[in-house]
Amino acid sequence: MTYCVAAAVDEGLVFLSDSRTNAGLDHIATFRKMNFFEMPGERVLVLLCAGNLSVTQSVIGLLHDRLASARHSILTQKSMADSAKVVGDAVRDVYQRDADALRAHGIEFNPEFIVGGEIRGETPRLFHVYAAGNFIETTAETRYFQLGEAKYGKPIIDRVIRADSSLATTAKCLLISMDSTIRSNLSVGMPLDLAVLRQGEQRVTMHRSIGADDAYFRSIREGWGEALRNAFHALPELAVPAPQDQSQR
Amino acid sequence: MTYCVAAAVDEGLVFLSDSRTNAGLDHIATFRKMNFFEMPGERVLVLLCAGNLSVTQSVIGLLHDRLASARHSILTQKSMADSAKVVGDAVRDVYQRDADALRAHGIEFNPEFIVGGEIRGETPRLFHVYAAGNFIETTAETRYFQLGEAKYGKPIIDRVIRADSSLATTAKCLLISMDSTIRSNLSVGMPLDLAVLRQGEQRVTMHRSIGADDAYFRSIREGWGEALRNAFHALPELAVPAPQDQSQR
Repeated sequence: MTYCVAAAVDEGLVFLSDSRTNAGLDHIATFRKMNFFEMPGERVLVLLCAGNLSVTQSVIGLLHDRLASARHSILTQKSMADSAKVVGDAVRDVYQRDADALRAHGIEFNPEFIVGGEIRGETPRLFHVYAAGNFIETTAETRYFQLGEAKYGKPIIDRVIRADSSLATTAKCLLISMDSTIRSNLSVGMPLDLAVLRQGEQRVTMHRSIGADDAYFRSIREGWGEALRNAFHALPELAVPAPQDQSQR
Repeated sequence: MTYCVAAAVDEGLVFLSDSRTNAGLDHIATFRKMNFFEMPGERVLVLLCAGNLSVTQSVIGLLHDRLASARHSILTQKSMADSAKVVGDAVRDVYQRDADALRAHGIEFNPEFIVGGEIRGETPRLFHVYAAGNFIETTAETRYFQLGEAKYGKPIIDRVIRADSSLATTAKCLLISMDSTIRSNLSVGMPLDLAVLRQGEQRVTMHRSIGADDAYFRSIREGWGEALRNAFHALPELAVPAPQDQSQR
């Protein structure tokens, strides 16, 4: 399984992905799920992926092969929506080639992508591309997308991220969301990839590979656990009848 | 769907269930998922259930029908493990009667139960009974069971509940776990049933039906959201390169 998440705020976009790939519990490996396509100052795209690894690698490979094509390159489109369409087309082409053979072996064709970035002249935009090649975009009401093991880490994002959250705050929130997921689900694991695109720069403002020894992630991890427990204990206690006191029954 | 959760701590047992039942998004109803079997001072059992409502109601009905049987009554067993077996037997009997007919209509036979309580002479015990009638019990390492939409509310339980958590603290934690789940998932809804069994009492120490206007639940709900946001903002911020500063790239 996988956990990938990205959010769009006024200052720009933040992406975070884990790197665990497993085919059963006894076949676990590390593969990066974050991919960059960049012409600094002109355009930048980040792709996060989830699903069968052979399928997502095929899609990414096809996108690289097509960089030479004026019409089909993900780096020559007029808009981010057209770029998401290029990803959707690549998904459909891999489906044409592989889906029947996979189905014959009981393997689901289930790739999913988060595609975000900025093209000069547009504001940053963020899309979720599905296995059928169709896609949706974030709106003012829903500013983030998740892939994979989304449930554990959803509550904190729902509570914290707003349009005016800074890039640093957004990154912190996504890292906490990831930490909650890693703690609860074995199929999500380190190292992580964190990327930040600041609006107006059309480039990767920051990319950080986060291993178990990353000082900032450790401070968040430990600090959050302690802060949660403190916040929890500061809340009022429920009045439970004392032993022998049956009046509140 | 459903969210039910129960935890075993040194002081006793705490149970919490939602009441939303849905057959598709346009068919939502309220059914309590908490059931009591009690001979105060002698024994007490609490059952939480999830899965197809006709199946879980049949199982609970069968347990009531069998209260008259010296051998098969859930209120005459020597131990809580034997009582969990009585629940498992009822599940198997309903399976014999209904599973084929349900399958013909594409309906899954998927009941699950949390069964906990105390019989005089034993310490309180907590079990998870599956659709096949088999069951497991909590241990010192794993002190809680969840049914249904378990993922959203799991991280807070993993972080907070310990053997020496008080009943009040445990109840507070389960309520926060429930709140996170209700916020993120439409298929889980109010009102809630909260029950507390204090060790050594062999009775329902406290049962509270919690509606949207419950003052304690509202204080937890609002307090937790604010406490989380405060804890979040108190954590150190990530150093994101300032605009034009490309040195940290």
